[in-house]
Amino acid sequence: MKAAIYGYGNLGRGVELALRDAEDMETVGVFTRRDPSALRTLTGIPVLAAADILKYKEDIDILIICAGSATDLPQMTPELAAHFNVIDSFDTHARVPEHFANVDAAAKKEGHLAVISCGWDPGMFSLNRLYASSILPDGKAYTFWGRGVSQGHSQAVRRIPGVKDAIQYTVPDQDAIKAVRSGRQPELTTRQKHTRECFVAAEEGADRAAIENTIRTMPNYFDEYDTTVHFITEEELKRDHAGLPHGGMVIYTGRTGLNKEHNHAIEYDLCLDSNPEFTGAVLVAAARAAVRMHDRGLSGCFTMFDIAPADLSPLSRDELLHTML
Amino acid sequence: MKAAIYGYGNLGRGVELALRDAEDMETVGVFTRRDPSALRTLTGIPVLAAADILKYKEDIDILIICAGSATDLPQMTPELAAHFNVIDSFDTHARVPEHFANVDAAAKKEGHLAVISCGWDPGMFSLNRLYASSILPDGKAYTFWGRGVSQGHSQAVRRIPGVKDAIQYTVPDQDAIKAVRSGRQPELTTRQKHTRECFVAAEEGADRAAIENTIRTMPNYFDEYDTTVHFITEEELKRDHAGLPHGGMVIYTGRTGLNKEHNHAIEYDLCLDSNPEFTGAVLVAAARAAVRMHDRGLSGCFTMFDIAPADLSPLSRDELLHTML
Repeated sequence: MKAAIYGYGNLGRGVELALRDAEDMETVGVFTRRDPSALRTLTGIPVLAAADILKYKEDIDILIICAGSATDLPQMTPELAAHFNVIDSFDTHARVPEHFANVDAAAKKEGHLAVISCGWDPGMFSLNRLYASSILPDGKAYTFWGRGVSQGHSQAVRRIPGVKDAIQYTVPDQDAIKAVRSGRQPELTTRQKHTRECFVAAEEGADRAAIENTIRTMPNYFDEYDTTVHFITEEELKRDHAGLPHGGMVIYTGRTGLNKEHNHAIEYDLCLDSNPEFTGAVLVAAARAAVRMHDRGLSGCFTMFDIAPADLSPLSRDELLHTML
Repeated sequence: MKAAIYGYGNLGRGVELALRDAEDMETVGVFTRRDPSALRTLTGIPVLAAADILKYKEDIDILIICAGSATDLPQMTPELAAHFNVIDSFDTHARVPEHFANVDAAAKKEGHLAVISCGWDPGMFSLNRLYASSILPDGKAYTFWGRGVSQGHSQAVRRIPGVKDAIQYTVPDQDAIKAVRSGRQPELTTRQKHTRECFVAAEEGADRAAIENTIRTMPNYFDEYDTTVHFITEEELKRDHAGLPHGGMVIYTGRTGLNKEHNHAIEYDLCLDSNPEFTGAVLVAAARAAVRMHDRGLSGCFTMFDIAPADLSPLSRDELLHTML
């Protein structure tokens, strides 16, 4: 299978490393809208100009699009699905149905296959919500995120005047998790489920109280949460907060029994040292499945809900039965 | 969809209750090899004679076989797959490839579809081993069972002379779990991963020391484990140990990064008040998928590895995108 990467930020690099670990996949290269000569890849794979991509139509079985959900993917994925099998990590939950319809129409026209919204949420967390609710229809799903870095929230803090650099961690509330695990199916507000923790390097002479107040009251990002702000030096920030760890959990509790007397808890936890590398690894497994599904004659848009798990693995059915079942 | 149950032990009752919760499924009845007039079902569904089952060929979309893996299923599933779409919970891991081949041949001959080895292990645990290893090929899976009742081990203790009644719990070792979660990928022996705990009601005058010794040294069942034996009264056993709770976890740790410097842990935990009711619920979700796959023209033998998750759910694709993704 020949795979190419479109876009080379943190996620693109994560995909590059995951492709290196996939023995059945070959990496054609990275397509960039920047000047290719200015870019060096981690593993030495070729850098190609996005403008030339149509010249590579015969060389690429699957194109892994690594770009932002806010403005890039809604345009990019349908456009590229007209020419390639594609996969993306579109994660604006509310706009998924619209994105799905656009990609589906573009892909079907030319007989290509697309998989959207791959990663861990949406992605593996979505799958766990689906499996659990299919098994236990009388139940309720809870999703917690963190402890981990939210890049969107970190950016929002960095834009505040007087802030040199900053990072934001989303932190799940341990009491809320305990209440959910009990099986009592509590109603929890946004504020009860997560807190936010910011580490800020302020400019010299900046008004720290004002910065802290701006963070805590920022609409959409912080105002619905309890937020803690720590001021640290730029050196400390670089030394102790350089990584992009993330994770979280889906907890589902449901009831069975003649009188619904039995409780069951299903929990899926992720603890990730590198969010983009894990997300990239999910994209590569899904890319393998996409090529197999296309080889079987399928076209149009799909999500991980439509992928038979065996298609994600490089192992044969016999190997899976012997080693995984 | 019209479903029928074949066999009416603990698992058959679990399936009966799960079918009651499945709004898109109708229960034809329970087929039994015992005298149907001697059997009363939990929810009042009809009891039918197993000998008459071929008369119902047109009335059953899927037959859910609820019988033992040791002797019943290896015969029963291929025989019934010649006449019906079927599903079972075959769980003798070492004999799965052989069972798969037998069922596949029988089902294909008449264009039927079978799904074998559904439940939680094999089943949901298998899926989690597969998903995790597909995403992170450089990693290792660990499976822990319990705390929960092992019916095979309980039966083995009950057969010891002087034992009136008994129950055995499989207990995962907390230090082993901690070592696995650390990401160090330890090598663990059987004795290090689990301990076993027995609650025994002995007959009056029985030699308790002899019973305890027989348990601890029993080959295959106990000799490789550290086992604790508690003698309690028959009343205490009935009062405190009547349920069939079980559960466990699959923990997968893997590495990514240019120099494999990033660790990731994926954990799937089940905590089940009733093992047979949860297993029955998995069977019913897989039965829904089996009928859909057969309607699409597929035949032969499959496992949960081959089922696209969306096929397990009663919800439409639109509903899934809106509520689960």
